[in-house]
Amino acid sequence: MRTIHSPSAMTAWSQRLRREGVVIGFVPTMGALHEGHRALLRAARLKCDALVVSMFVNPIQFAPTEDLATYPRRLSQDRTICREEGVDVCFEPTPAAMYPKGFQTVVTVPSVARRWEGETRPHHFGGVATVVTKLFGVVRPDVVWFGQKDFQQCAVVRQLVKDLNFNIRLIVRPTVRERDGLAMSSRNAFLSTEERRLAPMLYQALLAAQRAIKTGMADPKTVQAMMRKVLEAQPAIRIDYLAICDPDTLEPLDRIDRQAVILGAIRLGSVRLIDNVLTRRTRGGT
Amino acid sequence: MRTIHSPSAMTAWSQRLRREGVVIGFVPTMGALHEGHRALLRAARLKCDALVVSMFVNPIQFAPTEDLATYPRRLSQDRTICREEGVDVCFEPTPAAMYPKGFQTVVTVPSVARRWEGETRPHHFGGVATVVTKLFGVVRPDVVWFGQKDFQQCAVVRQLVKDLNFNIRLIVRPTVRERDGLAMSSRNAFLSTEERRLAPMLYQALLAAQRAIKTGMADPKTVQAMMRKVLEAQPAIRIDYLAICDPDTLEPLDRIDRQAVILGAIRLGSVRLIDNVLTRRTRGGT
Repeated sequence: MRTIHSPSAMTAWSQRLRREGVVIGFVPTMGALHEGHRALLRAARLKCDALVVSMFVNPIQFAPTEDLATYPRRLSQDRTICREEGVDVCFEPTPAAMYPKGFQTVVTVPSVARRWEGETRPHHFGGVATVVTKLFGVVRPDVVWFGQKDFQQCAVVRQLVKDLNFNIRLIVRPTVRERDGLAMSSRNAFLSTEERRLAPMLYQALLAAQRAIKTGMADPKTVQAMMRKVLEAQPAIRIDYLAICDPDTLEPLDRIDRQAVILGAIRLGSVRLIDNVLTRRTRGGT
Repeated sequence: MRTIHSPSAMTAWSQRLRREGVVIGFVPTMGALHEGHRALLRAARLKCDALVVSMFVNPIQFAPTEDLATYPRRLSQDRTICREEGVDVCFEPTPAAMYPKGFQTVVTVPSVARRWEGETRPHHFGGVATVVTKLFGVVRPDVVWFGQKDFQQCAVVRQLVKDLNFNIRLIVRPTVRERDGLAMSSRNAFLSTEERRLAPMLYQALLAAQRAIKTGMADPKTVQAMMRKVLEAQPAIRIDYLAICDPDTLEPLDRIDRQAVILGAIRLGSVRLIDNVLTRRTRGGT
């Protein structure tokens, strides 16, 4: 496995391989790799010839009030995981290499990014769309993998890939969970013991909603009230949003009469957790 | 020469050639090709293996009040010029293929695009940056050619190419002019005989400024006043802006102590004309 720091060296590596017909797979990460990332690497390893992982804590997707400074960084452990999973290149650019003096271009995906995470974090998806566009330019992948946990991020990237004619195949892999159902996340490390005990409640609420919809509950308000009831039983949990949406546009559904994504975000102390589940593609035997 | 309408067919064509090590050159146009375009095609033809020209009147770079509907379209004549100049592919996508239902991504280059054309046409460069990003995604060129006449557009694209890691070489070719100095432009066809007679005054004013700077005039205000005087002698000419700027950032200079670009925009009746000249790279023997 090789480590590449310079974007131009990364592009040169990719272009040389592409010319030989090699299929390049790419898993963009912010490092602090956990079992969720490992599952992406394993899925990717089976489906491409050369596998690139980027580890870059992207400053422009954090607001000044957010956790950029404290976001976990453990590069040597991350490299070990990459080596174990057969990664060919760890791409680790510096912020200065990605955003040199004079940098200014912004990529936005206004509709898909507007609600939910976009409301709480107004510049977040602009930062994500911009860095993803840059990383795709640098790495030139044929196939990329993202985790379903960041569902809205997946929708933003899917729209971006389509709108900007990237000709990249986007594969979204299911969320990997702890044994008690908590979605794996680099931010879980910041939970206190008591918060950690309560954290799986978000997934419990999402599952309850999924079950209710499966048995025929079609009014989003009723489903949301039910989820709210599950979560409000715990005073330490503050609900950020609970939503039932179209999986592509992320617009809330008036009636659950087709496949939907159930999105949730909560706060536990200073930690913000997000999670989601999809409903079945067809319902009620239709 | 072949004509390709579908973006995905265009990408497939390019990717096949790239894999064989072919250097792909690209000249993006809005059609209505004139001698300025022809000069770009000739320069391009000498420096690449395969030459692609796009002809696409990009709706999103026109404001509702602007001349999208009347912008000259003469595709069969354009194809003849391309054939004469040895173009390999005319890429002619439809607006619906470029902007299908649900399209929403926007690329902006805020600082370089802010002033001058950006002030008069607030959405123009957003539309330009977005379509250029898309066209680069579709065509995957190694080298692209633009004309210096649209100087700020060149600066926007140069910043975009750098910021989004396109790894494309951008070549800007000098403005091609009529015998009386008027910069070639598809919009010149809309000038009345009398307006056409006055139109070269813009270039005259720019040349006067260039000469004054060469002889040591270093205060932009004095130079601008001189240009204004040249143009205000003709009551039919309305000045939009006259500016002396840094050629990369397009910020106005306080003092002309390094290379500068002199930009001008005027209106003659309903037609808006732009032009520019560069000052020498070094001045006064330094």
